[in-house]
Amino acid sequence: MNKDIVQKVLEEVKKQIEMKDKKILDLEIKEEEEKVENLIGSSSITEYIGCAIGDTVGLVIANVDTALHEKIGLDKKYRSIGILGSRTGAGPHIMAADEAVKATNTEVVAVELARDTKGGAGHGSLIILASEDVSDARRAVEVALRELDRTFGDVYGCDAGHLELQYTARASYAVNKAFGAPIGKAFGLIVGAPAAIGVVMADTALKTANVEAVAYSSPNAGTAHSNEVILAITGDSGAVRQSVMAARDKGLVILKAMGQKPKSTTTPYI
Amino acid sequence: MNKDIVQKVLEEVKKQIEMKDKKILDLEIKEEEEKVENLIGSSSITEYIGCAIGDTVGLVIANVDTALHEKIGLDKKYRSIGILGSRTGAGPHIMAADEAVKATNTEVVAVELARDTKGGAGHGSLIILASEDVSDARRAVEVALRELDRTFGDVYGCDAGHLELQYTARASYAVNKAFGAPIGKAFGLIVGAPAAIGVVMADTALKTANVEAVAYSSPNAGTAHSNEVILAITGDSGAVRQSVMAARDKGLVILKAMGQKPKSTTTPYI
Amino acid sequence: MNKDIVQKVLEEVKKQIEMKDKKILDLEIKEEEEKVENLIGSSSITEYIGCAIGDTVGLVIANVDTALHEKIGLDKKYRSIGILGSRTGAGPHIMAADEAVKATNTEVVAVELARDTKGGAGHGSLIILASEDVSDARRAVEVALRELDRTFGDVYGCDAGHLELQYTARASYAVNKAFGAPIGKAFGLIVGAPAAIGVVMADTALKTANVEAVAYSSPNAGTAHSNEVILAITGDSGAVRQSVMAARDKGLVILKAMGQKPKSTTTPYI
Repeated sequence: MNKDIVQKVLEEVKKQIEMKDKKILDLEIKEEEEKVENLIGSSSITEYIGCAIGDTVGLVIANVDTALHEKIGLDKKYRSIGILGSRTGAGPHIMAADEAVKATNTEVVAVELARDTKGGAGHGSLIILASEDVSDARRAVEVALRELDRTFGDVYGCDAGHLELQYTARASYAVNKAFGAPIGKAFGLIVGAPAAIGVVMADTALKTANVEAVAYSSPNAGTAHSNEVILAITGDSGAVRQSVMAARDKGLVILKAMGQKPKSTTTPYI
Repeated sequence: MNKDIVQKVLEEVKKQIEMKDKKILDLEIKEEEEKVENLIGSSSITEYIGCAIGDTVGLVIANVDTALHEKIGLDKKYRSIGILGSRTGAGPHIMAADEAVKATNTEVVAVELARDTKGGAGHGSLIILASEDVSDARRAVEVALRELDRTFGDVYGCDAGHLELQYTARASYAVNKAFGAPIGKAFGLIVGAPAAIGVVMADTALKTANVEAVAYSSPNAGTAHSNEVILAITGDSGAVRQSVMAARDKGLVILKAMGQKPKSTTTPYI
Repeated sequence: MNKDIVQKVLEEVKKQIEMKDKKILDLEIKEEEEKVENLIGSSSITEYIGCAIGDTVGLVIANVDTALHEKIGLDKKYRSIGILGSRTGAGPHIMAADEAVKATNTEVVAVELARDTKGGAGHGSLIILASEDVSDARRAVEVALRELDRTFGDVYGCDAGHLELQYTARASYAVNKAFGAPIGKAFGLIVGAPAAIGVVMADTALKTANVEAVAYSSPNAGTAHSNEVILAITGDSGAVRQSVMAARDKGLVILKAMGQKPKSTTTPYI
């Protein structure tokens, strides 16, 4: 049996399979695009700002409808809202929104956690920022979308669960709204899933340095029944950072002992 | 190298792989069937009516046990219940149950939303319809199962989330139970996931025509912590229909801008 | 066309594809391992006890931090806690913890249900057992981890949902904490998902023998919005066992009628 012939046949077989797959895929995509195209007259949309990791979408409404105003509990002085939503991630979005409110003239109206992550153990999110002028709401969402690459850096995923670590030297209004943490002070967030891991991470964080626990959530309370234990801490910036890092290392070692291979969603930051 | 030979080899290779896969599959199926068969003496079951899209199952209990009567809060005058349950879909099932109560002598006892959709962003459902006579409960479930193909028509799914639109010219008791909408009036349902999209769709619906918002739900309130914003509207039939269609188009454009390819679960209806 | 040549080509093609896949996989695994290795100095961890089916992890904290003591509502007399957590399964873990408290000097502090099962219809869990001495907490977790193979035996999974059956001749403190069932008496647990199936299973269980319903949960109440109906029963051991088995058979027949192939997670036990 000639090895070269086998090799050539192999290549031909692969090429033909790939070409056929591509043709089928192209046809399917075209068909679907036409369907959607027929349904919608125009593709221009003023509300859309951008999308990002975690099926995140950033949107803006320039003039919120009066009835909707009431339903979302929006103060009458605000005409515009910026909206940040995701399937995967709540902490990264809260931290990103925190930077957005620091950088713009906006107010945090809502931080809502959905039980999501597409079959994962955690949350998706819905964050609404209000402004008197639409340009502020728009800029806030733009800032938040840009921050997500960084705030997803210390989210470590694996098949059995995930860890999430967040740190900021100076908490602002989004962090305050979500966790009741004091504004202007260093803030850290420690999340472990399944929740059992979060308990040990929380214990480690609290033992590592002189920090204060401002919020502790578990499947029964404070979460949307997610499979997480979430600890929010405040204190001196050095202490908070040290606690967060110690909790991260503990969580990584536990996941590793379980035979898991936790991986940063983007690039570790803390 | 002869192209014909390559072609013949390719066909032979494919045939052999397919035959082997089929053999393995057949063996697995046989093995599993035997296991279940051994566990259960007989396969006859009076409670089973049928199944449908979304892992929907339709069941009936002719004489509800007294203790269960109490647990599900069933009025003593009812002997029978029809049960509609699904992993994926709540709106389609509520609308289908609405047609069922119009067509039969049954009462809506429970409309419960589970956080489900098998890793998706939305709900599964449990709907219980009661009747004095078992034939009514049975027929109600049969009617509901038949309606699902239509009520899933304006459920658009894609990787990042989904949209759901529902419209009826005349709401009945299931819609009233689920959303508090007035009976006999036109009713529309607007759902967007991730929830951020639902906010913009709700705003669009309320701005499009003169409709009244009867219910507004978000991850924190009114949902089972699903990643949806749900708006229920009532009003003149033309206005409701127009609002629903405008919200649908807005949602589709946003998902498209996110690079998604939303697709109807069955065939668009509205 | 020579059949032998086709066969040889087929084998060569398969071999080459497999070798390439293996190389890519090995590279990826090595890369990930190095990343985690760099993040964590040492792999020794005193908290880790073991892992098991359902992404279950068993952990122990010898000296719980004072602030954490307060957050989890732990009595001051306890220094140590054992932690059992999972992505998939709550019933199996409660039953396993029940054996653990029977066998050790520990107290059940928390039984929390997360809405999880990795895209499935049910719960994950977080169970905390407290002890004055760390050796008791450690042993309790060890006992619980060992029991899981048995308590997962009557968990039947399939694409559309799952069934879960549990039985013990003598309930202890974990079952009492979770379901309010009387200690020392026979106890049975009946779970069906999607929830509609659980309704019929509950009805069957209650009709089969003279048992008492101590708890009934559905998506709206008693669950973490899971797509389950859960019935907890107590009574004479023969009656409880008979009810559980009748409910199991009913659930299996319904899933089969839906075209499903329910399969035990480990090996049927009841």
